[in-house]
Amino acid sequence: MDKWDKIIIGIDPGTNVMGYGILGVNGKTPQVIAMGVLKLAKFETHYLRLRRIYDRVLSLVEQYLPDEMAIEAPFFGKNVQSMLKLGRAQGVAMAAALAREVPITEYEPRKIKQAITGNGAASKEQVQEMLRRILSIPKENLLPELDATDALAAALCHFYESSRPIKQKTCSSWKDFIAKNPGRVK
Amino acid sequence: MDKWDKIIIGIDPGTNVMGYGILGVNGKTPQVIAMGVLKLAKFETHYLRLRRIYDRVLSLVEQYLPDEMAIEAPFFGKNVQSMLKLGRAQGVAMAAALAREVPITEYEPRKIKQAITGNGAASKEQVQEMLRRILSIPKENLLPELDATDALAAALCHFYESSRPIKQKTCSSWKDFIAKNPGRVK
Repeated sequence: MDKWDKIIIGIDPGTNVMGYGILGVNGKTPQVIAMGVLKLAKFETHYLRLRRIYDRVLSLVEQYLPDEMAIEAPFFGKNVQSMLKLGRAQGVAMAAALAREVPITEYEPRKIKQAITGNGAASKEQVQEMLRRILSIPKENLLPELDATDALAAALCHFYESSRPIKQKTCSSWKDFIAKNPGRVK
Repeated sequence: MDKWDKIIIGIDPGTNVMGYGILGVNGKTPQVIAMGVLKLAKFETHYLRLRRIYDRVLSLVEQYLPDEMAIEAPFFGKNVQSMLKLGRAQGVAMAAALAREVPITEYEPRKIKQAITGNGAASKEQVQEMLRRILSIPKENLLPELDATDALAAALCHFYESSRPIKQKTCSSWKDFIAKNPGRVK
């Protein structure tokens, strides 16, 4: 894997489908190494699904040796039941990364859409189309499930975020400046 | 570990404190092998906490080689935010069991309280006192945190549930009987 300066794995965990995308970065150029989905609906029990998520993420981590993981993580959901299930799916995916010391950063769907398309309310199709152009993905490589490009979008968003220059501390007021810079003003 | 017919690990996962209890069973006699808590409040980030939960559960599984895991799992919570966090804590604890092929059964807090005290609305203190008597736990072994006895209660509840005779299929009506017994009635 010496070919790449950095490898980022993007994960879009869900209880029915999990998407993943592996992005290789050389300098400022990101490129798709792999992408795919894990279909979970066929597994009857919740535990089998969690098991499959854990196993697949672990095997992806062991195969591609990513330096970092980016995970799409909605902070709000329809109800407490679905959020508990989503939390478990995220938890087992995270455990697989944690087990191999891969640092995790999570991004809200809105943030990812904003980073890729410039519009936080973009549709999944718009995200896919934009990704296809940015990463020059051949049309025949796209999957019918949009979860794979969603995961890739998380990885690309993480690349953009981590390659931005460190933001200056911005202060909205003099009071704010004093609070953020103790000792600078006597 | 040949001393025991079966070993059950009970886990009460939370984002501030995780309780665990290891129960050894010989015939019909359950006995405490170990119990404790993992305090998480001191870890600053959510990821560090998840990491510690995963590491601790994995090391408990490797040390005590439990045959089964029982997990206390509330199905309802205050809000979607706290349920997502709880789901993640449950997810990483489950991943550690799944990674070592330990089957998991979850129990609602109400169900556990019912099984231990006969009252689904019992207080944590009542559960602890009942456990202390059933399992002959010396008072000096009890921890100030009730999460350890909560976890032990989950393990004991699982022991009671799994040693009950298989329930007969109960049918509430003739129509129900026909539906559940295709071919028995022509």
